[in-house]
Amino acid sequence: MSNLDGNSSPKIHIETPPVASSAPATGNGGIGGILRRWKREDLMKRGSLALRGIALLFSLLSFIVMASNKHGDWREFDHYEEYRYLLAIGILSSLYTGGQVFRQVQELSTGKQLLQPRMAAMVDFFGDQIIAYLLISSASSAVPMTNRLREGADNIFTDSSAAAISMSIFAFLCLAVSALISGYKLSTQPYI
Amino acid sequence: MSNLDGNSSPKIHIETPPVASSAPATGNGGIGGILRRWKREDLMKRGSLALRGIALLFSLLSFIVMASNKHGDWREFDHYEEYRYLLAIGILSSLYTGGQVFRQVQELSTGKQLLQPRMAAMVDFFGDQIIAYLLISSASSAVPMTNRLREGADNIFTDSSAAAISMSIFAFLCLAVSALISGYKLSTQPYI
Repeated sequence: MSNLDGNSSPKIHIETPPVASSAPATGNGGIGGILRRWKREDLMKRGSLALRGIALLFSLLSFIVMASNKHGDWREFDHYEEYRYLLAIGILSSLYTGGQVFRQVQELSTGKQLLQPRMAAMVDFFGDQIIAYLLISSASSAVPMTNRLREGADNIFTDSSAAAISMSIFAFLCLAVSALISGYKLSTQPYI
Repeated sequence: MSNLDGNSSPKIHIETPPVASSAPATGNGGIGGILRRWKREDLMKRGSLALRGIALLFSLLSFIVMASNKHGDWREFDHYEEYRYLLAIGILSSLYTGGQVFRQVQELSTGKQLLQPRMAAMVDFFGDQIIAYLLISSASSAVPMTNRLREGADNIFTDSSAAAISMSIFAFLCLAVSALISGYKLSTQPYI
């Protein structure tokens, strides 16, 4: 809680979230509990935006590195189903995180909600969780293939593949933490 | 809610959970909301036990099928790192789900809590989530290898591998849903 004061930039307008009025204060009640809850919710909102922004960056890198990984002969990514899978999931993850970042930035700047809060919490949580599973699945499927290729030859093709896999794993880590935050938000929605 | 009445076996003693007294009623308040909350929590407790039991069954099957997958020559699972990974995660998942099922059955039968409620909710959620990620990762890594082997030869070795992979995926599905339930429980803990 205390590091919030150091980070709070003055241009972000902290609003009372619409859920706070009907949601229960789980602290020891009173004004202090409600204030702590608002601070936590504001921190979580900005934290999830930052995490999704980083995930967007990493998935973009992963899919661009993999898509440009064509060096002739056997060193073309599209000869290997694992790499095609990694590319597909990289694109999907970029689209999803891009859409989420766009929506969150717009909500922060205009103050209007594009989706109903309950619907948004569901989309957030299931989206994060499913994309996280897909990312870890595609990265894991591409690792053994790359290992085996690198035993034979260590060149720009295998290095680029390894880079794309690492980027996917970083994007997975960000989305896994983001799914935690979204899961907490979903559970504290009233009338779930 | 209505299917609870059909399933409720008389021997399971429904207790008021210790969290319910201090946790907020998220319904429209009053006795009805609290009763609905108790019913939901009881349903969730039994649902998570059932899901972990099924996950235990599937991970046991997966690791037994894979461990007995030795048919001489190149048809030995331990020549392939993907299959060794699948086996290791199968064993880990069996141990984890076995321990959880043991704990939950003991809590249901004796009524005593082995862990503090908050600690138990954390262990449940992070355990389920991490094992689910590991299971999907190991299954995904083993799929392309098996695909490639089956293009050359379709025999008892590749069939057993495919069976073990499927069992891992089923165990993953159960644990993913169980992680959802544990996440909800964790979020409704007071003083989180």
